[in-house]
Parts: sequence; C-alpha cells; structure tokens
Amino acid sequence: MVQALIFDVFGTCVDWRSSVARDVAAMLPTVDAEAFATAWRAEYDPAMARIREGGRGYVPLDDLHLENLDTVARQTGVTVPDRAALNAAWERLDPWPDVVEGLGRLKRDHIIAPCSNGSIALMTRLARYADLPWDCILGAELAQDYKPKPAVYLACCAALRLPAHNVMMVAAHNNDLHAAQACGLQTAFVPRKTEHGPGQTVDLEPDGDWDICAPDFITLASHLEAKA
Amino acid sequence: MVQALIFDVFGTCVDWRSSVARDVAAMLPTVDAEAFATAWRAEYDPAMARIREGGRGYVPLDDLHLENLDTVARQTGVTVPDRAALNAAWERLDPWPDVVEGLGRLKRDHIIAPCSNGSIALMTRLARYADLPWDCILGAELAQDYKPKPAVYLACCAALRLPAHNVMMVAAHNNDLHAAQACGLQTAFVPRKTEHGPGQTVDLEPDGDWDICAPDFITLASHLEAKA
Repeated sequence: MVQALIFDVFGTCVDWRSSVARDVAAMLPTVDAEAFATAWRAEYDPAMARIREGGRGYVPLDDLHLENLDTVARQTGVTVPDRAALNAAWERLDPWPDVVEGLGRLKRDHIIAPCSNGSIALMTRLARYADLPWDCILGAELAQDYKPKPAVYLACCAALRLPAHNVMMVAAHNNDLHAAQACGLQTAFVPRKTEHGPGQTVDLEPDGDWDICAPDFITLASHLEAKA
Repeated sequence: MVQALIFDVFGTCVDWRSSVARDVAAMLPTVDAEAFATAWRAEYDPAMARIREGGRGYVPLDDLHLENLDTVARQTGVTVPDRAALNAAWERLDPWPDVVEGLGRLKRDHIIAPCSNGSIALMTRLARYADLPWDCILGAELAQDYKPKPAVYLACCAALRLPAHNVMMVAAHNNDLHAAQACGLQTAFVPRKTEHGPGQTVDLEPDGDWDICAPDFITLASHLEAKA
C-alpha cells in the first residue's frame, strides 16, 4: 500500500537543461547557452560528492550552484553580470508536459513531496514557478546530506512518520531508485529520454526490478488507481 | 518588504477545540467531550516545556499528544479503545471560516508556510484535511525545538533563505509574536476570540507593537495588498 510518493525533481519533474539554457541565453547572449547549461550541471555531482564523502559539511545546493557557476564562468572566460540572478535560473525550471496534471491526480490519494537534492528554499520557489502541488517539501536538507546516501530517503520517510515500504520513490534515474529500494522504499521509473538532449544514452530503460515503470506521471497515476 | 508569511496553526488557522471535541464525542461517547479536549490541550505546554528547557531531547508533537492523551485518560478514568485513531484528531482540525480564502490570496504574492509546533507529518496531513495551500511545511521539527524558542523562528527564515525582516509571523497569540519580533521578524496579530470557548479571557487584544492587526486572514491580505 503506497501512502506517499516522493519524487526526484531535476530531470524527473522538470526539464532543467532547456530551462537553464533559456536563462543563460537571456543573461549571457554571447555564450553557447546549451553548452554552458550542460557544463554547469556537470559540476553538480562532483560538488555533492565531497559532502557525501564527508570532506565537507552540508552546504545547500543553492550555494553549490553558485560556486559551480563561478567555476564554469572562469573555465569559459565569461563575466556574469548578476551571479545571483542567473543562479536563480534553478528556481525557474519548466515541468515536463505531463507533470502538473499527473501530480494533481496522484495527490488525490497520496501525499506527494519532492525528495530532491535541492534545498527547501529552492524547491519551494520552483514549486511556485512550475505549479507543482506538493503537500510538503522533503529532501536532502532534512538529512543534511545528498542522494543517493540512504539518510536522505530515510529522512523523508521519518518526516512523514511512514515505514519505507509505504513510500514510493519516483525517478527518471535508475541509480536513484537503486538507492531508494535498498532503503526499503517502493520504486517507480519514469524515463525522461531527452533530459540530457537528443543524444541521451543513459537511463533510457529501467535497469532494476522497479515496482512500476510508466512513460509519464499520468500513466503512473492510472497504474496506482488500478491497484487501489 | 514581506516576502514570506509564516503562521501559527493551532488556534490561529484552525479551531482545535471544537474539532478535537467532535472526535472525542464520536470515539468516547460517555465523556464530556469539550472538557476532555480542553484537558488534553492543557498538557500541551508542560510537555513541550521540558524539551525547551533541555530536560528531554526533541520528541515530535504527535508523540507528546499521545502521551498527553494517556495522561488525561488516566486522570479521568476513561478507557480509549483506539489511541492512535483518537490521536489523529489533531490531523482533522477545521479551519476558521476566513482561512482558506485568505491563504489563497496571501499566497499570490508571498510564500506561505506554517511555523507550528506540530511535526511535518502532522502539518502535512492537517493541510490535506483542511485545504491549507502551504508552499512548504516549516516549524518546530526543522529546529528540533519548540516555540517560543528563537531557534524555531530562525530555522524557518534560514530554510527560506530570507533575512528575518522579510518574513512576517502571523499568530493569534501575543507571546508567539513577542518571540518572533525579538528574532527580527515582522508580526501580524489576528485574534481568535473563541479559540478557548465563549468565556475566553486571553489574547482578545494585541499587547505589543505589531506591524499589522487584522480581524481575519482576508483583511490581512487586503492590508498587505494595499502596502504593495
């Protein structure tokens, strides 16, 4: 019995790549916006890795994004006129077309919440921008650590006062689901085959024994309604 | 400039007394339901006081409510058939009549969130029951301490990544506003003159220099819209 669904956000709910590229193009008109967005995102996992491995205390993703922006600007020789304004691009990410309707349906019978590496502030502002109807904001900040560390998934279940087997993790990334499953959560895979652009080679197919695989959130809602 | 509004919930947003009494009447038909609800709530502050004073580590309010239910049941010689079901009465509290409309208007231009002593789980389930359209759930659990300790108000501002002077605390209780103001937050007083029943003697009037006093959330929204 699934009582709550928790969601990866970057890539699973929202199209970070084209959204960030749009803001880069508006604020840095001379750079290759898609390449800049991809390079910025490429710094994401290494920045979190140091924290996951204990080499640095927890720092919210907003601050990592800003450090990473400075790194990419330095590497590409670009001067960013308003760093904070561009960093807020991560609060203005467009949802995939099925997301708002799908979440609305899933919310009828389940608690829905992000389980993202984004901070509470970032997820709150993004939800307002993208009309994501979360019941509450969960994720990395509660655990003061980053996915795929087990502490993050377990902190979400604890905050909801639910056993892990009553919570389903929804993600477009197999590694996220492997980590959640190892913590005892149920899992749903919803591929986003253009998250990384038209030439994407990763996460096109499920590579684990997930409880549900669905092409979009609306179909996911139908699966869960049929089970109820 | 107010960017976010954070709210006391029990008493300010919802009528805990008549709602809990309703569930007590349904589940314990032989007891005086209003007296039982009042006695249950009377254990609330002493239970938190031990934690605020450091005599006990943080325990979520759900667990304190259950301990307090056992205390009142023992004092009154009542046998409670399903303690967990009755304890969930705190997740089924009716909003005052102006709250849902008022929050909807306030949400247009501001982040809105509870700053309650209730847990994330309790506030999430209550929001679903009462249609409270929060952007995120903040409050005591983030700080692992209880209001009116400054840590709770400051944790809410930190989670939103906002300075305290851009955040307004809304409450029907003067002591809550005194504590928030001491932390640098703006303050709004919305009295709830029957929270404790028809003979209420406390918090009928403002007793501090609050930024806004309004009779209900709709008028509060009008005040803020006029300032914008």
